Amino acid sequence: MKVETLRWFNNRLEMIDQRILPAAFEYLSYYTAHSVAEGIRSMVVRGAPAIGVAAAYGVALEAQHLQEKSAADFKTGMETGFTVLAASRPTAVNLFWALQRMRKVWESVTTQSPQQVAQRLLAEAHEILAEDIRINKAMGANGAALLKDGARVLTHCNAGALATAGWGTALGVFRSAVEAGKKISVIVDETRPFLQGARLTAWEMVQENIPVTLITDNMAGHLMAHGEIDAVVVGTDRVAANGDVANKIGTYMVAVLARRHNIPFYVACPLSTIDLNIASGKDIPIEERSVEEVKGFRDYHWAAEGVKIRNPAFDVTPAELVTGLITEKGVVLQPDGQGIRKLFG
Amino acid sequence: MKVETLRWFNNRLEMIDQRILPAAFEYLSYYTAHSVAEGIRSMVVRGAPAIGVAAAYGVALEAQHLQEKSAADFKTGMETGFTVLAASRPTAVNLFWALQRMRKVWESVTTQSPQQVAQRLLAEAHEILAEDIRINKAMGANGAALLKDGARVLTHCNAGALATAGWGTALGVFRSAVEAGKKISVIVDETRPFLQGARLTAWEMVQENIPVTLITDNMAGHLMAHGEIDAVVVGTDRVAANGDVANKIGTYMVAVLARRHNIPFYVACPLSTIDLNIASGKDIPIEERSVEEVKGFRDYHWAAEGVKIRNPAFDVTPAELVTGLITEKGVVLQPDGQGIRKLFG
Repeated sequence: MKVETLRWFNNRLEMIDQRILPAAFEYLSYYTAHSVAEGIRSMVVRGAPAIGVAAAYGVALEAQHLQEKSAADFKTGMETGFTVLAASRPTAVNLFWALQRMRKVWESVTTQSPQQVAQRLLAEAHEILAEDIRINKAMGANGAALLKDGARVLTHCNAGALATAGWGTALGVFRSAVEAGKKISVIVDETRPFLQGARLTAWEMVQENIPVTLITDNMAGHLMAHGEIDAVVVGTDRVAANGDVANKIGTYMVAVLARRHNIPFYVACPLSTIDLNIASGKDIPIEERSVEEVKGFRDYHWAAEGVKIRNPAFDVTPAELVTGLITEKGVVLQPDGQGIRKLFG
Repeated sequence: MKVETLRWFNNRLEMIDQRILPAAFEYLSYYTAHSVAEGIRSMVVRGAPAIGVAAAYGVALEAQHLQEKSAADFKTGMETGFTVLAASRPTAVNLFWALQRMRKVWESVTTQSPQQVAQRLLAEAHEILAEDIRINKAMGANGAALLKDGARVLTHCNAGALATAGWGTALGVFRSAVEAGKKISVIVDETRPFLQGARLTAWEMVQENIPVTLITDNMAGHLMAHGEIDAVVVGTDRVAANGDVANKIGTYMVAVLARRHNIPFYVACPLSTIDLNIASGKDIPIEERSVEEVKGFRDYHWAAEGVKIRNPAFDVTPAELVTGLITEKGVVLQPDGQGIRKLFG
């Protein structure tokens, strides 16, 4: 089964509701930038590349929604749409990258009618989606070459088809390795509190018949100490100019353990996730989400009443712990500022 | 509120049902070794010292249950009781320590009537319970001296009153620090899959008005990297002769991170938890529990269908990562075989 995380259907955006997977598989429909922003905020869609694609469609939808307005009202409405989308989630840079790209397209056609602008923006959103899949497949091929036949590979969270327009970044590497005839098996952390590992990555790998084993977030160290993990591949929400990697909370712990056990730690990272404007990881904004998420899962709460709660959604892994950045332009081993600048050279 | 994890009431053992805390607070009653063994296996009671006390009462209950039998039937029944209790859980050594102690008492009174033996065994179980609390308070005082006023201390799982006859080992250190006038605050990992941190430690600390913050198991690294944790104190299920520490799965990951961030990592450990018969941590049996526990929590399952699951309940932290073992006889800094032997000298 091909996972279409986002699709254009009947002149609207449809997104798989990732909050209810794998118990239910359902598409939700979006008509405006405002509803797409809410879909991003509430994590109907998540994963840095998928958020970028969703935001691009959000801009296109808003233009379509406003195309009968006067030029002045169209402009005002579009600006509001951009603002609302930009405020939906703070950490994944792909969101801002996609908005910037859509804005440039808009600015290039300001003399045209709202209808023409709307058409042009929709074409650009389609192109961003198609590009994302092409990029994932290029990354996948580059990453697959790093994995030995028989490798047992740990991943954290979901950097899969569900986190992108399709194929996936980290899980794209696994798909490409399997396509290349390698027998690999995947170990995935459940990834509290939103359980992207238990719900989404496990589901994707089962769909693909790639062997997958689920563990809780506190078990990776034990498996590494017992020689049961050969490599780690994760995705990322933003990479700073010096190679520091922001990704789902818990990634840093896995990286520290991988270093202790001399296990290679790879980050699958499309160029759109690299933020050259951020010097180092300590400047990457880390989203703190609602404490409700940590009290339990969905409406089922188990935490003791009266306890305080923290819920940082991401952490930063320093570049020194990263064995290699897997990009669509090749693998940057031991990434640093110089290695990253070369990608854009 | 004083937490009486286990209590002798109306000639039976009562134990708080820790599977349903904190949603409900309820005692279950036990009359035989067999039911106590099932209570240990199913984690009505958990925590190494509490398991030891429960097992002692299990032996006493079985003697009481069989006291009208012939001497031969009494002996056979008692042997079965010992066997069933010993098979309940494999990792916590206190279970075997308590059974050994009860067996010695039994062997010292074999010429007496079953009724007299039953009385003597019950007295010994009472003494083990009372001793456990005295030992915890001695450990607490020794450990409290290690914590600075204002310290923000991370703990994992529940090594509290609920894991002992009362007061607690790691949480006993916190109680003693507060009693000594120190202002400390506790950060606790939720401790998947059984959620002892979110349910039990958070509940105990709220009861005591000790400030407590809940995080998921993958957040400790982020907090350490941001300078938000000053020390770690955990309990243990078994310490090998060389100082290696078996404790709840995830402890090893916390220890590795603490070392990276130069944060002291202490283990609260009554002498009954030290197993001189085990040379090093790699010989400590690690219980693998039912995969059902990792699929979700209680009957609420969220994991994708068809995923394989691992569920090791404990891991081993090598002695080199332990800053100090806090015992009732004092603190062993940088524990090794020599330091541990001195405790028994």
